[in-house]
Amino acid sequence: MKLSRIADILNCELRGDGNVDISGVAGIDEAQPHQLTFVANPKYIPKIKTTRAGAIILGPDAPTTPIPTLVAKDPYLTFAKAIEIFYQPPRPLPGIHPTATISDGVILGENPSIGANVFIGKNSRLGNNCVLYPNVTIYPHVEIGDDFIAHSNSVVREYCKIGHRVILQNGAVIGADGFGFAPQADGPYYKIVQSGIVVLEDDVEIGANTCVDRATVGETRIGRGTKLDNLVQIGHGSRVGEDTAMAAQAGIAGSTKVGNRVFLGGQVGAAGHLTIGDGVVAIAQTCIPKSVEPGKIISGSPAMDLNLWKKNYILMLNFPELVQTVKRLAKEVEELKKDRDQT
Amino acid sequence: MKLSRIADILNCELRGDGNVDISGVAGIDEAQPHQLTFVANPKYIPKIKTTRAGAIILGPDAPTTPIPTLVAKDPYLTFAKAIEIFYQPPRPLPGIHPTATISDGVILGENPSIGANVFIGKNSRLGNNCVLYPNVTIYPHVEIGDDFIAHSNSVVREYCKIGHRVILQNGAVIGADGFGFAPQADGPYYKIVQSGIVVLEDDVEIGANTCVDRATVGETRIGRGTKLDNLVQIGHGSRVGEDTAMAAQAGIAGSTKVGNRVFLGGQVGAAGHLTIGDGVVAIAQTCIPKSVEPGKIISGSPAMDLNLWKKNYILMLNFPELVQTVKRLAKEVEELKKDRDQT
Amino acid sequence: MKLSRIADILNCELRGDGNVDISGVAGIDEAQPHQLTFVANPKYIPKIKTTRAGAIILGPDAPTTPIPTLVAKDPYLTFAKAIEIFYQPPRPLPGIHPTATISDGVILGENPSIGANVFIGKNSRLGNNCVLYPNVTIYPHVEIGDDFIAHSNSVVREYCKIGHRVILQNGAVIGADGFGFAPQADGPYYKIVQSGIVVLEDDVEIGANTCVDRATVGETRIGRGTKLDNLVQIGHGSRVGEDTAMAAQAGIAGSTKVGNRVFLGGQVGAAGHLTIGDGVVAIAQTCIPKSVEPGKIISGSPAMDLNLWKKNYILMLNFPELVQTVKRLAKEVEELKKDRDQT
Repeated sequence: MKLSRIADILNCELRGDGNVDISGVAGIDEAQPHQLTFVANPKYIPKIKTTRAGAIILGPDAPTTPIPTLVAKDPYLTFAKAIEIFYQPPRPLPGIHPTATISDGVILGENPSIGANVFIGKNSRLGNNCVLYPNVTIYPHVEIGDDFIAHSNSVVREYCKIGHRVILQNGAVIGADGFGFAPQADGPYYKIVQSGIVVLEDDVEIGANTCVDRATVGETRIGRGTKLDNLVQIGHGSRVGEDTAMAAQAGIAGSTKVGNRVFLGGQVGAAGHLTIGDGVVAIAQTCIPKSVEPGKIISGSPAMDLNLWKKNYILMLNFPELVQTVKRLAKEVEELKKDRDQT
Repeated sequence: MKLSRIADILNCELRGDGNVDISGVAGIDEAQPHQLTFVANPKYIPKIKTTRAGAIILGPDAPTTPIPTLVAKDPYLTFAKAIEIFYQPPRPLPGIHPTATISDGVILGENPSIGANVFIGKNSRLGNNCVLYPNVTIYPHVEIGDDFIAHSNSVVREYCKIGHRVILQNGAVIGADGFGFAPQADGPYYKIVQSGIVVLEDDVEIGANTCVDRATVGETRIGRGTKLDNLVQIGHGSRVGEDTAMAAQAGIAGSTKVGNRVFLGGQVGAAGHLTIGDGVVAIAQTCIPKSVEPGKIISGSPAMDLNLWKKNYILMLNFPELVQTVKRLAKEVEELKKDRDQT
Repeated sequence: MKLSRIADILNCELRGDGNVDISGVAGIDEAQPHQLTFVANPKYIPKIKTTRAGAIILGPDAPTTPIPTLVAKDPYLTFAKAIEIFYQPPRPLPGIHPTATISDGVILGENPSIGANVFIGKNSRLGNNCVLYPNVTIYPHVEIGDDFIAHSNSVVREYCKIGHRVILQNGAVIGADGFGFAPQADGPYYKIVQSGIVVLEDDVEIGANTCVDRATVGETRIGRGTKLDNLVQIGHGSRVGEDTAMAAQAGIAGSTKVGNRVFLGGQVGAAGHLTIGDGVVAIAQTCIPKSVEPGKIISGSPAMDLNLWKKNYILMLNFPELVQTVKRLAKEVEELKKDRDQT
């Protein structure tokens, strides 16, 4: 496709030769002369000189380059849209595969695509345009909105409620029993029936093998537009706000409230019954043992202010020397005291 | 249901109006006038004044309240039982779904409920009242006791042995190959056949997407009444005691022995070939590199006594100041020495 | 089986009675008189005196013992091969189960074994001797080599490429969408189509419920002979070298390059866009925030040299005393200064 045509589709200003033929997109290190790349992070601007890309998407303030350029206010977002010009994931066949089991009382919207060995339990309702890949299981009494995509081996448990345009990656588990056991004086744990549900609001995406547990009573809720990466754990009764993102292997224990536009890095853990304010950012592997005020950037296990954590890290690299210094000072002070006392 | 009837069922003393109509249970913050709530942790006693609940379960020593009250020795356990009055999870249909595959030599107990697309491999034996939700896979030569519940996408691998009243949440994997590879002098790893099994004793519950690996030789064993949360990893050849609990994303490497009534918090990791004594408590994200004596409470990466860890955390908040102080002292001591030497 | 026969099969020198009857293998603590055990790690040599094993595999330099002995250059590797004499995992029936769905355009090699409810999407190609256990899902347009083993509930997503002799444990997810979302100035995240693929080279093994994400553009690649344990996360666009191993619950974020013969311990996390050099070893729970030079051994959150980390750990055990010492010194120096100024 001619670059000028791509500029039109993406609504970008074109600088340089619009006749370049582009057949795909690629990262700046891998891009070939027939490919389109981008720079969004100023850190990568020096790579503009060395990339082999045939064309590049740049912000309005980027340095000029002989490479034919699409100028975009938001180069990363524009790159995201450029990918769609060249690739669309294969959509499974419409209709209901003969090996699928649709139980009594199920209501399906228009234009369903339901793959092999899918099971939908009784009285569940799905909106229009649902895509259920092979081996998906929907338990009974589930309510799901329009444009639902459930990849193979994902599961939605009984009574859960899912909004519009929700995506479940493979192996995602929505609504398994929360980890609720009452200790008994005479020994074994008593299993607490998990009577609550999970609510996924509109535009939520749940990563592969991620688990969102149903509540003991009431609900566990994931807010509109929130994205969870793979292997994330959401404990029972938690409430996650809108447009929040959690990277892989992050986990929050039960009954914790996470605000809007929060970002939890990979392997971050948060204890139960906390409030994590709007806009909080937690660096990877942070352990959050108590509530965090809105807007804080935290790191460490346990969490502290990111700047303090960075300082401490550098100081820790010289910790043995510090201890040696203190030991030496203790000796010298002892001598000074002795000398003083003798004079 | 009248509160007086609930008091009867739960065997509690009733204080106040037994005619209140209760239609469900809820947490103290969410409870409405038609709902029953509870306070077990003294920390939440102040909330008794502000809750909108129509009735409340309290311990014998709780302050009196105008809210109709059920007095229980163990309010948390009583609340757990109250939930069951109002909610029972839907049980799938009895019988064997026509799309299930029951291989040759399988022996099923009485009253099975086997869902769509379930596969049971040859010569496997299941006890009475088993519930296998859709898309469960049982490999050949497995032995399972009575009252087994396996949620969709859980798997039990070949030759594993499972006791009575065991529950597998969705995606749990029992008996996948342990991570055993012998390095070879000339390069690639050599896969070690994992010939052992997994044994889950009675009353074990395994969380969603949790993995318990089969042993290289012998067995991996999870003791009676032990509960594993979601996304937990149990390495091959480990032995976990009775009534132990591990929170989500905890992991123990191979050949480690974990005692009885241990609690591992979320994201705790333990190295291989250790012994973790009875009653040990490890706070979330603790890293356990060596054996731990019974009864210890530990935290940190790597683990130390919880009290020391707490002290150190507070001290670390002022670590930069400490380093500044030491630098200043070093200068001052230098001057003092100079002054002394000049006098 | 006579020990002398086992010596022949394993190509070992026999010391002692070759007539001992051996019916299996076991670890040194559990081995019984009819079992063969081994010692590879010198740490366990003292156990030779107390084991009940009927025969033992030892290195050429091990102390002599009255127990009949197989002398092997590499006792651990020889033990691995000994296990195979006594145990082979049951192989499922050859052929295609009637409940499996093989879509149009699928090409299967010779001697397939395809279990119940398996789904293979259109135009996918598999080599010879593939074993797909029940409930495996292969999306369309996948290419897979010979001797592929996919355990129940594993998934390979569209367009991914898999080499020869690859093993997927249960619930492994190859090629789910990477975690790619472009922030938009006016709020919600914009999902970036993940147009790339995953490539698993020859002899790779992927653990249970482990996720290897497809790339945004280009590919995510796992090198020849690399082994990933359970619940591992590989972010989109990452490249892992050859003969590398990652223990359970380790995770690497997107676009990170991991070298050859690297070892990441359990729960290790690495940030995105890093280079981790050949031969790096990261101890369990290490957090890797920046690139690591080849051959380094690191530990800590964030990572530092292992030796420094060990020193710091021991010093931290006395951190409160250190702080006390500094406080005392500050007071004493103050007094010394006062005394000096008064003289």
